[in-house]
Amino acid sequence: MASEDQLIERVRRKFPSTAASVRTGIGDDAAVVRAARRAEWVVTTDAFIENVHFLRRVHPPKVVGYKALARATSDLAAMGARPLYFLLTLALPTSCTTKWLDDFLGGMALAARRFGLILVGGDTTKYSAVVANLTVIGEIDPGRAILRSGARPGDLICVSGKLGEAELGLRLVRKGLRAGKQGKTFIKKHFYPEPRLALGQWLATHRSATAMIDTSDGLSTDLGHICEASGVGARVWAEKIPVVRVPPVLKRIGLDPMRLALHGGEDYELVFTVPKKRARSLPRIIAGVPVTIIGEITREKGISLVDSHGRDLPLRPAGWDPFRKGKSG
Amino acid sequence: MASEDQLIERVRRKFPSTAASVRTGIGDDAAVVRAARRAEWVVTTDAFIENVHFLRRVHPPKVVGYKALARATSDLAAMGARPLYFLLTLALPTSCTTKWLDDFLGGMALAARRFGLILVGGDTTKYSAVVANLTVIGEIDPGRAILRSGARPGDLICVSGKLGEAELGLRLVRKGLRAGKQGKTFIKKHFYPEPRLALGQWLATHRSATAMIDTSDGLSTDLGHICEASGVGARVWAEKIPVVRVPPVLKRIGLDPMRLALHGGEDYELVFTVPKKRARSLPRIIAGVPVTIIGEITREKGISLVDSHGRDLPLRPAGWDPFRKGKSG
Repeated sequence: MASEDQLIERVRRKFPSTAASVRTGIGDDAAVVRAARRAEWVVTTDAFIENVHFLRRVHPPKVVGYKALARATSDLAAMGARPLYFLLTLALPTSCTTKWLDDFLGGMALAARRFGLILVGGDTTKYSAVVANLTVIGEIDPGRAILRSGARPGDLICVSGKLGEAELGLRLVRKGLRAGKQGKTFIKKHFYPEPRLALGQWLATHRSATAMIDTSDGLSTDLGHICEASGVGARVWAEKIPVVRVPPVLKRIGLDPMRLALHGGEDYELVFTVPKKRARSLPRIIAGVPVTIIGEITREKGISLVDSHGRDLPLRPAGWDPFRKGKSG
Repeated sequence: MASEDQLIERVRRKFPSTAASVRTGIGDDAAVVRAARRAEWVVTTDAFIENVHFLRRVHPPKVVGYKALARATSDLAAMGARPLYFLLTLALPTSCTTKWLDDFLGGMALAARRFGLILVGGDTTKYSAVVANLTVIGEIDPGRAILRSGARPGDLICVSGKLGEAELGLRLVRKGLRAGKQGKTFIKKHFYPEPRLALGQWLATHRSATAMIDTSDGLSTDLGHICEASGVGARVWAEKIPVVRVPPVLKRIGLDPMRLALHGGEDYELVFTVPKKRARSLPRIIAGVPVTIIGEITREKGISLVDSHGRDLPLRPAGWDPFRKGKSG
């Protein structure tokens, strides 16, 4: 059985931290780091727990490691921030301290390289289940962070990428279906989500967005967060939503693209609002990611879905909420 | 059953964050905060998990909330840093989301006020056990952080307060003993540890210490961390160690002061090294806390305990290590 020190040493080897901005990294009581002189700090923390957020029999350790960090980093993308450092708390069963841990750290190291993050500290302990907690620190020019609270009536609502793909991937994995090449794409999106860092930073730098959030819990829930924080409502045009393309064979078993897109979680796309005037000049592809206008912010509270006949239907949050019993979508 | 949003709202009410340095606190994707222009950031993360670090039947929720934050903040004390902000990840069984949660947050709010910490963000989820993770952020003047790695041969080893009190408190609580007024003092030390923030900052400001750590795992283990990081050894004079005063009735049931002091964890005192010349002018009480010289740093690796007859006995780490089976001390 490895001691805590040996475990920390193995983590340290996987994450060499020699950046000039890190005065003290892994291995002391706390990390000591520097930031750009004028920047503000953007900080987020996110739990990733076995049997709540992932299943050990379904999600390979490499996926667990990658995804734990990607989810937390997506919160920085949703502010428009640049990622800098992260800290990892890891509680593990003894059976996971060798091969499983290596693969987990491998997946996390892949994510860290991809997002430009340096591991500067953490905490480890033995536990009956795998519990990871990620704290991610980034920076942004003063006053440029894009909050949830800035949406104004008349603003247009935009979304990046496609919605519902990760949820479809999750369904396939849970049912043990592969569904060919297309199926693999969806499973990949569920396993290895891509925080939209470059898009978020572009929007912050160009002061294009008035409010922003990432779709971790599903569009119906996450757009609701923007509306609540901004004190506004929204109308979403159903036909405009970039819904997941569900292969016919899966449609037949009841997987509905619109339900997946509205309530499916973990796409980690960005939902943001843009003043109408600005929307005209907004590129349709930003940092390689397609951006689609899907609706508008309204003075009246509540979110409605406008169907192809122009009828308004109320859209209620039905995405992921860990404290709500059951789950629709 | 409360939704996640309702839960976050309850946390927010307990921790009003209106400091000018907090641009965005609880409730957005991430927190946005400012620091003093020239300071470095000091960041630490620390898990506090039911059945690993505490027992729900033994530790009242107020204690769990207080202690979770105190433990993490002690890591900042051990660097000499000033606490600023913290983030809370909280996984909870449904049965803990009402009264238990209120008391937990009450204890944590007490700690936050006492240490000068502002809650700026977090994450909540439902889980079968209580899992808390605290990330604490502080600041320090550039280059002043006191690391584990700076101890040099000839430096004297100092310790604050008394050692073994918290471990004795834990034993009393676990055995259901109260042991009168004195017993209450020890239980209080175990329940409500005081991170030595003022002492740590004094040492950093006066550039008095070459290395420092907090006694979270016990002197034998924590002094070992300083020695390993600094590439040195240590001699500790047994008679000089400020050991816990064990009441006679408890000595009779086998509670040995020296063993408690050497290997007992969670005192959250500071162990630090001071150049010999500087030690002469070091006050015996700093920021209200007694400071005792207990040994010296040696060129030869390994730690030895020198008894009253001048004999050297090897002192092996036998404090708390979550990955080692069993536990002595």
